[in-house]
Amino acid sequence: MTEAELETELLTTIPLTNAMALRVGACDGTSLQLMAPLAPNINDKGCAFGGSLASLLTLACWGLARLTLSRAGHQADIYVQDSQLSYFAPVWSEVIAIASAAPDDSLHAFVDRFAQRGKARLSMVADVCEGSTLATRMTARFVALRKP
Amino acid sequence: MTEAELETELLTTIPLTNAMALRVGACDGTSLQLMAPLAPNINDKGCAFGGSLASLLTLACWGLARLTLSRAGHQADIYVQDSQLSYFAPVWSEVIAIASAAPDDSLHAFVDRFAQRGKARLSMVADVCEGSTLATRMTARFVALRKP
Repeated sequence: MTEAELETELLTTIPLTNAMALRVGACDGTSLQLMAPLAPNINDKGCAFGGSLASLLTLACWGLARLTLSRAGHQADIYVQDSQLSYFAPVWSEVIAIASAAPDDSLHAFVDRFAQRGKARLSMVADVCEGSTLATRMTARFVALRKP
Repeated sequence: MTEAELETELLTTIPLTNAMALRVGACDGTSLQLMAPLAPNINDKGCAFGGSLASLLTLACWGLARLTLSRAGHQADIYVQDSQLSYFAPVWSEVIAIASAAPDDSLHAFVDRFAQRGKARLSMVADVCEGSTLATRMTARFVALRKP
C-alpha cells in the first residue's frame, strides 16, 4: 500500500477527513506524517480545534499501523483502544502530525506478534509541532485483528 | 446563554462541527448533552470514528464550561489542557455525549475560583453510551481565562 492509496482510503471511508482536508505525507517505514490546513480546522479562537488535533493524531497512528501491516502482507481491522492527549500550546498554522511506535514498542515487533497470533497491540506516540515547539502530544494503544 | 445560542456559536466558529452535524441538547446546570448523527461520523468499519468521538466529548465538556461561566455572568476563553480517552466498545448509532464535572471537582467551585482569580481549571468527565453500555469515556482538564 502506498501513501497515496492510504490517503484515498481515508478520504473515501471516513467522511470527516474530507471536512478536515486531510493529506497523507511520507512514510519512511518508522514514522508517518499527516497534514491538514488550518482553515477548516479552526476553533472559536482561530487556532486549531482540539478535536481536529485529536483526529489527525489518531489517524496518523492508525495509518502507520495500517501501512505497516499492509506492507508486510497482512489485512487487518485496526482499532484505537485508549489515548492520552496533552495540549501544550496552540497551533496557528497548518497542522502536521507525525506518528511512530512508542519508545517501549516497535513496528517490527508488532508485525511479528500479528503474524503469530492474528491479533496484536501497538503502543504509539504522535506529535504536532508549531515551529520547533511541541504543541500537542498523543500517546495511544491500538489493536489489530486479522480480517475475518 | 441558552443551549440554542451555544449550538449557533459552535456551528459558526468551529467548521468541523458542521461536518459532524453537531446539535446541542439540554443543559440541566450539572451536565450537558451533545448529539451527532452516525452517517457523517463513521470510520472505515461503519461505526463511529474515534476522532468524531473525541471531538464530541471535548466539545461537550467545553460547552458545559462555557454555559456555566456565561450563566454566572463571566466571559472567558476556555482551552482543553489534557484528556484521556478509553474506547470500550464501538458505537453503531447516533452519538450522544454527556459531560459533567469530575467527581473530585464541581461547577460551583469552578465558578467561584474563576470569579476570584479570573482564571480557573476544571476537571471533567464525558461519556458516550451505546444503549446501556458505556462505549467511550473521556476525562479531561480545561482552563478558563477571563477575556482581555
